[in-house]
Amino acid sequence: MPNVPSSRASRRQPLKGSSPSSPGREPVATRSPRVARRKLETRLRLLDAAFELVAQKGMDGVTITEITNAADVGFGSFYNYFDSKEGIFTALVEWLFEEFASTLDRLAAGLPDPAEAVAVSVRHTLLRAYREPVWGQLLIREGLSTRALSRGLGQRLLRDTKRGISERRFIVADELMCVFSVIGTVAAGVAAELHLSGSSKRAVRARKALRSRHEKFAESTAAIVLQAFGIKRAEAEKIARRPLPVPAQTARI
Amino acid sequence: MPNVPSSRASRRQPLKGSSPSSPGREPVATRSPRVARRKLETRLRLLDAAFELVAQKGMDGVTITEITNAADVGFGSFYNYFDSKEGIFTALVEWLFEEFASTLDRLAAGLPDPAEAVAVSVRHTLLRAYREPVWGQLLIREGLSTRALSRGLGQRLLRDTKRGISERRFIVADELMCVFSVIGTVAAGVAAELHLSGSSKRAVRARKALRSRHEKFAESTAAIVLQAFGIKRAEAEKIARRPLPVPAQTARI
Repeated sequence: MPNVPSSRASRRQPLKGSSPSSPGREPVATRSPRVARRKLETRLRLLDAAFELVAQKGMDGVTITEITNAADVGFGSFYNYFDSKEGIFTALVEWLFEEFASTLDRLAAGLPDPAEAVAVSVRHTLLRAYREPVWGQLLIREGLSTRALSRGLGQRLLRDTKRGISERRFIVADELMCVFSVIGTVAAGVAAELHLSGSSKRAVRARKALRSRHEKFAESTAAIVLQAFGIKRAEAEKIARRPLPVPAQTARI
Repeated sequence: MPNVPSSRASRRQPLKGSSPSSPGREPVATRSPRVARRKLETRLRLLDAAFELVAQKGMDGVTITEITNAADVGFGSFYNYFDSKEGIFTALVEWLFEEFASTLDRLAAGLPDPAEAVAVSVRHTLLRAYREPVWGQLLIREGLSTRALSRGLGQRLLRDTKRGISERRFIVADELMCVFSVIGTVAAGVAAELHLSGSSKRAVRARKALRSRHEKFAESTAAIVLQAFGIKRAEAEKIARRPLPVPAQTARI
């Protein structure tokens, strides 16, 4: 589970899934709430800057100096928040996907059928990946990383799978295998679609057609995932095509 | 499709899937078969050296100088064969997976049931990835790359899926989605198992137990892939547990 800072100031912040390197080294009680809040704000500025830069240049091309310049933070101060470039990227990915996992939870909260909950999550994940290709690339990287199973999205997926198995909705031998199947199928689908979209100029011109194609692709992905969970084709497709629940609060999803 | 060199000498070599940068710039007719063969041998030496080095240090840590030193080839000569480090890695991955795809074809050739052919391919792929972790990492990289669908393994998977659909053995809406499901599930399974094996010292000590666990894991992966293809759980598990066909010639699989 992520370290969530426990100071009063930090609770006011929407920051989730902070990096392992982030907890203050001195007890929170010795710092004023204002100092603690300023620290969190600086940390968020660094994360925001890192995300913008990664979106522009990809993860490999970004330097710590560029991040601190963009965030208007002194180069040396960076190390008060993160151990390394790898450290801020880990925190960034964790932050993005904890936030997304919470959004999915809100969206799927009212769905009594675990199959529909899984389908909605798969579809929203793919649609966001198409809208935000950098997010999609980070998703692939995160999904196949060693952290995937212990953190936000992986944990929630495992929980939903267990629920579906215990309710005898999913007919599968192995809950972990279900998680691999979902993560892998989504990752492969995102990888393929990001490539196809990127290479097809005609498709980019016809944005509306592209959007509809992406929605259909997301539905097909959800359907095959449900088939892997032991649901028959006709029913899997029906569930995968149901109208998507709309977020209660207009979070960025 | 890969460029297969067309000289007589090259046909004697088992090399498949040579790099786009590899075809001779001068017509083959102007070179003696001996010269052509020597060129192919040098190219294979460079590829072998690259594979060994990647196995030791990972792809990012290897330099062209190290490759040419290990292959006993002059640094400048490298560029007669490949455009860049990226170029030799692309050729390496293509070569490895073309070779592997041919081996899978030989193994699955006698199987009348397309479901068993897919299951056998999935299991052999996972087992080789566990035995050769670097190969497994390259597999993940290749599987989610833009090339995956147009080359050896992807093409064969698509062919097998089409066959299963036309024989009404696979009950699915979308053949491409099947391919993403297989590629993704295998990639996620390999990623997870490589991590678990690497981090568990106890497991490494108990090699026999590990091997048996890997075999079971490969069977479970094949079973969930077959479920995604519309085969019911009990039958999917039965097919996934059938004895593996043994290669007729003892190729490296």
